[in-house]
Parts: sequence; C-alpha cells; structure tokens
Amino acid sequence: MPNKQFTLEDQLMLQDIMQHRRDVRGNNFTQQAVADSVIDQLIQVAALAPSVGFSQPWEFVVIRDDKTKQQVADCFADENAKAQTLFSNEKQKQYAALKLEGIKEAPVNIAVFYKPSDEPVLGQNSMIEMGEYSVVCAVQNMWLMSRTLNIGLGWVSILNPDTVKNILNAPSEHKLVAYLCIGYVEQFLDKPELETLKWAERKPTQSLVHHNGFKA
Amino acid sequence: MPNKQFTLEDQLMLQDIMQHRRDVRGNNFTQQAVADSVIDQLIQVAALAPSVGFSQPWEFVVIRDDKTKQQVADCFADENAKAQTLFSNEKQKQYAALKLEGIKEAPVNIAVFYKPSDEPVLGQNSMIEMGEYSVVCAVQNMWLMSRTLNIGLGWVSILNPDTVKNILNAPSEHKLVAYLCIGYVEQFLDKPELETLKWAERKPTQSLVHHNGFKA
Repeated sequence: MPNKQFTLEDQLMLQDIMQHRRDVRGNNFTQQAVADSVIDQLIQVAALAPSVGFSQPWEFVVIRDDKTKQQVADCFADENAKAQTLFSNEKQKQYAALKLEGIKEAPVNIAVFYKPSDEPVLGQNSMIEMGEYSVVCAVQNMWLMSRTLNIGLGWVSILNPDTVKNILNAPSEHKLVAYLCIGYVEQFLDKPELETLKWAERKPTQSLVHHNGFKA
Repeated sequence: MPNKQFTLEDQLMLQDIMQHRRDVRGNNFTQQAVADSVIDQLIQVAALAPSVGFSQPWEFVVIRDDKTKQQVADCFADENAKAQTLFSNEKQKQYAALKLEGIKEAPVNIAVFYKPSDEPVLGQNSMIEMGEYSVVCAVQNMWLMSRTLNIGLGWVSILNPDTVKNILNAPSEHKLVAYLCIGYVEQFLDKPELETLKWAERKPTQSLVHHNGFKA
C-alpha cells in the first residue's frame, strides 16, 4: 500500500488551486513587498519538480534591482512592437490594448534557466528537450504554490532570450526558459483575460482526446 | 483584495503533494483497473494549465490497447539499448539494472502532444518553444493530481518520437512532448530512486540561486 494517502478533500483543494491560478500582469500587481522567505519557498518547491535523470537542471536569478528590470522591460518593448505586426488589423488593435507583462510593477522578477549537464543525463538522449521540460515543471510548481500563497505570478515570453542573457550576464550554455514577474495582487481574475475578451475560446476537453491513436 | 484566499493549511497540503510526487515505473504498478472517469479527471486538470496566448495546444492519446503498448515498449527497448552505451562502465552496469518505464505494466498510457496553431499565437514569437512549454505545464498538473488520487505516473522519455508518432498515426505537425504510464501502485517511494541509489545527489537550493544576475 502507498505510504502516504491523500483524500478526496485534498483532491478538491488541488483542483481549486489549479482552477484559480492566473497569469498576472502589471495592471494587477500591488507594491506590497514580497519577503525573501516567500521567494525561498517558491524555489524550494521548484526543486521538488520531476527532473530527467534527477539532473535538477534549473537555476534561478532573483531580480529586485530596478535598473535590471528597466533593461528587461526595454527588451520586452522591442519584441512586443515586432510581435504586434504578426496579427491581422482587428486583432492588432486588440493586441495593442493588452497589458502583457508586469516587469517593473512586480516587486520581484525571477529568470529561470536551464543549465545543460557536462555529462550524459539518464533519459535525455532520444528526447533532448527533456532538460528544458524539467525546468518547465519546476515553473509550474512555483506558479501553483504562489497562488496558494495568494501571490500573483506572470510568465513573460515576449523577450529576446539572448538579450536577457546579456543583461543577466548568463553563461553562454545556459538557456532562458522562463521570465517570471511575482507580487501581491489587486485581484485574481475569475477567468483568463484572453478568454473573457474572446481573444480565443476554451476548447471542449473531449475534442482534445483520442483513443489508442489518431483516426486515419 | 483577491477573490479566493488560500490558507496556510492549503499551502502545506500543496507542499506535501509536491514532496510525495514520484516517477513510477513498471516495478511498482499494480493491475488494478483505472476508471475512465479518473483519466477524464486528469485531462480536465491538464486543461487548467497555463497556455501561451490561451492557445491550449495540447492533445491526448489515451492508450489501453495491448498491441499498441507492445509497439511502444519495443521502441523503448531499441532506444534504451543505445542510451546505455552513453555511460561509462560503472554507470552502465547500474543503468542496466534500472527499470526505467512501465509501458506494459501500467493499465493506461497517455501520449501527450503539442499541436502547433495555424495562426500566430500571442506570446509565442520571441520564444517559439512556449507552445511546447504550455503542454509540459499541463503534464505537471496531471502528475500532481494523479498523486493526490494515489495513482502513480511515470514519464518515459527514452523513446524515438517519430516512431511513437507512427505507431499512433499522429499528424506530421504534431510533436510528442510526453509519454505517460498511469496506474495504481504497490508503493510510492520516499525519495526519487536515483537519489537513493546515489546515481546523482540532490543539489542544495542555495547553489541554484543568483541575485540580479550571474557573477562576472
């Protein structure tokens, strides 16, 4: 028998946390200070994530320095101007009205890196992305825990990874996987903002499931 | 104020789930049937994961068919034989003794795919991997929920993704992100097996953290 048994109550609680987790942007962060102990707690649970071959290939840069944040925000502005042009006219207007990051508004930013191993890693041969994927699992642990701490987290992906690496003086072999903005919030939205704004619709889960293979 | 407030008790519960989550292999699965409703529940929480631009780019192939599992197990055997040769003599012996998958022992397998969008995706321009990363967040949600259901999950990465795609008749643009083995267990190990066997050591978290950038 499994050593530790969880209960129906625990299942419902976890479901509730997942349901209420949101991507938080600059229009929702408050200036309330985030203690170092809270950041430590997030990194502790990140390190509980699964990692391929127990390689734990994650590194975290905790950023509180305003000048560093400003440099990253400038990088976002450059990339976001380019990104906007990818969309058709109507969506471009909607895009321009969206607040997509909270780099300067969030008291703490964390850049999460994948650090490749110098040695072969068990399980990372046929699917070499497994190292990065382990780091993503760590980010998802941080995200769920931050929600449970009633702290907002937003993942900013509209960034040139090389520029961010330069700003943070990262070793060349490191890969930027995630750039996170963390802080207390005005509110957690009931639904993803892009769902409410009808940018995209929620897919019915039955449309996502196949049995024993895709139909020919 | 945030609408839904979680408590210290909730935080400790989530930490407990993360702490007790394990990668489960064939030497720990039992033959107890896994109900369709349980699989539905895992896919429901997968769909609660964050996704770039609310793209929800995940698809799930639920596999119960023995012939299909056998084909995937054969693919594992081929890849594992190659993988073993990557390690030095001493580690190679240790590697050979490890049970690294539970494809046939687990009542249910789920292949998780990334399905690229036909249109531009908000937030997936500067970092194109964001679509795959969203799928990994979904897998981590499934993993935590399965632990709370006292069900084991193992992620098999020693597979040729193209071979698995062929076996499952997957469209060419789909990318295999994860192959999961799911079932009830004899036990959940207290620690990752690779930690207990001293294949690798747990890294002290303070060694993983930098402040405002890497030291020059």
